[in-house]
Amino acid sequence: MEQTLAIKIERLQGQLTELGAVNRAPDGSCRRVALTDADAMGRDLVRSWMRDLGLTIHIDRIGNVIGIRGGQSEGRPVMTGSHVDTVATGGLYDGAYGVLAGLEAIRVLNEVGLKTQRPLAVAFFTNEEGVRFQPDMMGSLVYAGGLSVEEALATKAEDGSVLRDELSRIGYAGTMPCGEIQPHAYVELHIEQGPVLHTAGEALAAVDFLQGISWQKVTITGVSNHAGTTPMRLRHDAGYCAGQIAAFVRALATRMGGAQVGTVGSIQLQPNLVNVIARKAIVTIDLRNTNDGLLAEAEREVRVFLADLARTEGVTIESVRTAQSPSVAFDVHIIETIERSAKRLGYKSIRRMTSGAGHDAQMLARICPTAMIFVPSVDGVSHNPREFTEPVHLAIGANVLLQTLVELANE
Amino acid sequence: MEQTLAIKIERLQGQLTELGAVNRAPDGSCRRVALTDADAMGRDLVRSWMRDLGLTIHIDRIGNVIGIRGGQSEGRPVMTGSHVDTVATGGLYDGAYGVLAGLEAIRVLNEVGLKTQRPLAVAFFTNEEGVRFQPDMMGSLVYAGGLSVEEALATKAEDGSVLRDELSRIGYAGTMPCGEIQPHAYVELHIEQGPVLHTAGEALAAVDFLQGISWQKVTITGVSNHAGTTPMRLRHDAGYCAGQIAAFVRALATRMGGAQVGTVGSIQLQPNLVNVIARKAIVTIDLRNTNDGLLAEAEREVRVFLADLARTEGVTIESVRTAQSPSVAFDVHIIETIERSAKRLGYKSIRRMTSGAGHDAQMLARICPTAMIFVPSVDGVSHNPREFTEPVHLAIGANVLLQTLVELANE
Repeated sequence: MEQTLAIKIERLQGQLTELGAVNRAPDGSCRRVALTDADAMGRDLVRSWMRDLGLTIHIDRIGNVIGIRGGQSEGRPVMTGSHVDTVATGGLYDGAYGVLAGLEAIRVLNEVGLKTQRPLAVAFFTNEEGVRFQPDMMGSLVYAGGLSVEEALATKAEDGSVLRDELSRIGYAGTMPCGEIQPHAYVELHIEQGPVLHTAGEALAAVDFLQGISWQKVTITGVSNHAGTTPMRLRHDAGYCAGQIAAFVRALATRMGGAQVGTVGSIQLQPNLVNVIARKAIVTIDLRNTNDGLLAEAEREVRVFLADLARTEGVTIESVRTAQSPSVAFDVHIIETIERSAKRLGYKSIRRMTSGAGHDAQMLARICPTAMIFVPSVDGVSHNPREFTEPVHLAIGANVLLQTLVELANE
Repeated sequence: MEQTLAIKIERLQGQLTELGAVNRAPDGSCRRVALTDADAMGRDLVRSWMRDLGLTIHIDRIGNVIGIRGGQSEGRPVMTGSHVDTVATGGLYDGAYGVLAGLEAIRVLNEVGLKTQRPLAVAFFTNEEGVRFQPDMMGSLVYAGGLSVEEALATKAEDGSVLRDELSRIGYAGTMPCGEIQPHAYVELHIEQGPVLHTAGEALAAVDFLQGISWQKVTITGVSNHAGTTPMRLRHDAGYCAGQIAAFVRALATRMGGAQVGTVGSIQLQPNLVNVIARKAIVTIDLRNTNDGLLAEAEREVRVFLADLARTEGVTIESVRTAQSPSVAFDVHIIETIERSAKRLGYKSIRRMTSGAGHDAQMLARICPTAMIFVPSVDGVSHNPREFTEPVHLAIGANVLLQTLVELANE
């Protein structure tokens, strides 16, 4: 029976484009940073589509939105979903694809009148990107019990705004306790956001593993002084330290090799003037590895380096951890269900791969059997307006998701 | 006769404090960036003091303000002065001290009724710091014919504002052609802004040399991408390049040694997010040396490094020179006059030293005999609210300036 089900790619693409048009920049960037007005507009749009499909919509206290399609029985739902917030200059597909493909799957089932045994749920989780408020993947983390809702609501942004207020302001401070709807299983469809599938010319992967992530914000306090009159040996230059950190993180990741990556994506200097030695620098460090032991070793090396740098340069260096999540092994049964679904659609043997990015699925994995499906990103580009996935791959991923959901909901 | 003349330090300190109070920050920073409202308020205040002293005030087309005290004859005036703009977080003394000490000298001469042979002039030059509009030392550069007034007026700030409009807006678009008043000589009194005099425990120096300065703004364009999924070897990371440049500039200056200094004071990344590889970085480089050949060699090394970095990292790097001034040897006759003045006040032998900072005096040196007087900066701190010079040193410097002006105006 399930083999005959097929999503309609034009509808999925249409909704991706319509959602992406919300507050889109002239350069094509999607700009729906979590808990901004643009995020609210995106959420409202997706919620209206959930309503059109006849889903029962729940909003929990952290603003996660869950649309339920009833099953023949009243058990735990099989859940899919992702997020609809973006980074400040994001692309069309990151997050939105998983949510809208879930809705397209429901749409197909509605059209053929197929009622699964278990209910189906499509969710979008609050603040996956962690741009304004940290940690990232916050909504799903709270959903899975990894962070108390009170703590999450009290989070402050750089601009001083409090998450609780922003959530109320945009109209998404729901009343349902977080995690009240316990999924039977969770499957998330996402673009790879890396080059592996595109480079290999493959259409699809089952994600069996997700690397550990460590973020820290490092504040260096030196002494501001005149750039022309201060001898090199008498400097306490926070800007130089920032530069050394960026250089060290690259060298560390390269030296460790394997799955280790490291990024200094943000540097802010004060007073940030051509002829003034910087008094202060704030630098972020993003470290990831599939091996939690190696990730901890990378963190330790950074710690030693920062201590040495503080001593050598006569500056003070403070580091605050802004996010940390260990690596996650996904559920074998869900992975095999994805592989069977792919096989029914003609993909005999699909790659099992590790995700380099964090995803809401890693949080859901704490409370139910979970796995992910990846489709290629052209040139591996993501978090960028040039993010692109071929429509044929979008369709394949959505069809495998549909098959997987139906099989899990009928088991 | 001149030995009996003496400035009153309370008056000089009072005016330094009053000017410094304009738009002062809670942390004590003076914030009178050139051509802002705060700069206008500072200018208005100093102009009112010039009026109180009976000076004839001229404003030229680039906004330089020159107050003239008539002499017994009508020849070229002996000029002193400096600037009243500050960096974004500046101190009380940089620039302001030279201008207000000049006014205090005039005040003493008015009180004793001493009329010099030549007229005396006290000037403050527009935009010495070069924070919003580049190049720095702009007003004196135009005054000395090193930059056309039209070109200077057309200068654009980062925020898109045009210097001509800002100058009109703050009411300082004068009508006098720049450089119309040709000085007989120029003497500038300034705090050292470095640690030499303070460390040596000396009260005074004659400045005989000023190091060459080279500024460039470097723009690195890489590829924005996901920090977790992009393998290290596939990155084109503008943030990493910014860090490498900061590290290289320090290493270069340290390796060259001698008088070479180098600073990366400003770094701006885009999109500047923890989990996104930076697409773009804008980095400033400030290089200085007393030896123009070595400074050119430092510039050449930076050029080679940037070309290598662009090739290695697969990014494009463009560099624009935002300021460049060769080293300047000051006039021996003026230096000796300063030394004689110091000797009359009991300072038998004062140090001759090189200035590490740029000063308006280096521009005036193009059109008349010029030298400078330095007093100590405590701990060498400058461009910082902690900038401080002991009142006793402020008084000594101002008295030597007074003596020097009188001797030059009577020769």
